[in-house]
Amino acid sequence: MATNASREEAGRHALELIEEAGIVLTDEEKAGLEIVDFGFDDLVRVGTQIHTYVNTDRYCAKELVQLPGQTCPEHRHPPFDGTPGKRETFRCRAGKVYLYVEGEETEEPAVSPPEREEHYTAGHEVALEPGEQYTIPPDTNHWFRGGPEGAVISEFSSRSVDEKDVFTDPAVDRLSNIDY
Amino acid sequence: MATNASREEAGRHALELIEEAGIVLTDEEKAGLEIVDFGFDDLVRVGTQIHTYVNTDRYCAKELVQLPGQTCPEHRHPPFDGTPGKRETFRCRAGKVYLYVEGEETEEPAVSPPEREEHYTAGHEVALEPGEQYTIPPDTNHWFRGGPEGAVISEFSSRSVDEKDVFTDPAVDRLSNIDY
Repeated sequence: MATNASREEAGRHALELIEEAGIVLTDEEKAGLEIVDFGFDDLVRVGTQIHTYVNTDRYCAKELVQLPGQTCPEHRHPPFDGTPGKRETFRCRAGKVYLYVEGEETEEPAVSPPEREEHYTAGHEVALEPGEQYTIPPDTNHWFRGGPEGAVISEFSSRSVDEKDVFTDPAVDRLSNIDY
Repeated sequence: MATNASREEAGRHALELIEEAGIVLTDEEKAGLEIVDFGFDDLVRVGTQIHTYVNTDRYCAKELVQLPGQTCPEHRHPPFDGTPGKRETFRCRAGKVYLYVEGEETEEPAVSPPEREEHYTAGHEVALEPGEQYTIPPDTNHWFRGGPEGAVISEFSSRSVDEKDVFTDPAVDRLSNIDY
C-alpha cells in the first residue's frame, strides 16, 4: 500500500481537480474518496482516484480522476452472474485522458505504457478532452493515463463489481486500498 | 408545441445554466438539446430541457435542466419488458431543485404545483442543492421544479424509454417535441 503521505497528496490533488472541474462533493464524500494504488505504492505513476455516486445492480456512476501522467493499469470487465460484464462510458470533464482499448493499433501513440509494459496489450488510442466521450464494451482490455494536467472523467456504466475486474498484470492488487 | 421563439429562449437559457455549472457540451450536443414542453406550450411554467449522454439497454445518463420556477409534471416509470421500471438517481449540480415524491407529505412545502394541480399527488419534498442526490425507485410518482436560479441535475439511471412514462395528468404529451 502507498505510504500515507503520498496517499494524502494524491487525494488532495484529485479533489483539487474535481473542484476545478466545477464538480461539488460533500465533505463526507471528499473524506471517502477512493485512492487506488493497485498494490504498487507508486501513485505518481500508477493509480486512480474514484468517487462513486451510485452503484446498484442496474447502473453505476462515478467520477474518476487521473493525476498528470498517472496510469490506470490494463484490465477488462468479464461476464459474471449471467451478465455480459460491465459496459462503461467515459465522459471527459476536465483535462485530457489518453485511453487505450483493444482494436487497430495507433501507429504513433501519444504515450507509452509505464513500467511492466509487457502487461499492456491494448493499443488503439482514444484521446478525450472535455465534452468528448467513448463507450468501452464489456470484456474489452483497456488502460488510460491522465494528460499533462490530469483528467476528470465521468463514468456511466452498468453495475460495478471491482473484484470481478481482470488485470493483465498478475501483480495488480485492485483492492489493495481496502482494509479487511 | 411551444412557439419557436419561446423554445429558442428556453434552450438558450438552459445552455447558459449548463455552461455556468462547468459542464462542457459539444456544439453538436448543444444543437441537439431536447426541449420538452409536454404539450402545454408554456415553457416558462412547465417543461424540462435534457441532454442525454448515453442510453443503452443497461444504463442511461442525462443532464436535466429546470429553468427558474419551471416544473416537470408528475409521472412515474412503470415496469416494462420484464424490468421493474426505470430507477433514477438525481444529483444536483448547480442551483436548486425541489423534488416531490410519493411518501409522507411535507407539511409546509417550499412550492406548490402549477396549474392543473389536481394532477399532482406526490407531496414528500426533497430539496437538492449542489452535491446532494436522491434515488427515485421505479414506479414511484414524482415531479420537480427548478429553484429561483434554476437547476442543473445529473440523472443516472437504468434504461430510459420515454414513451413508457405514465403522467398523472392525462393531458400531458411527453413526446410533443418530437416530429413524426
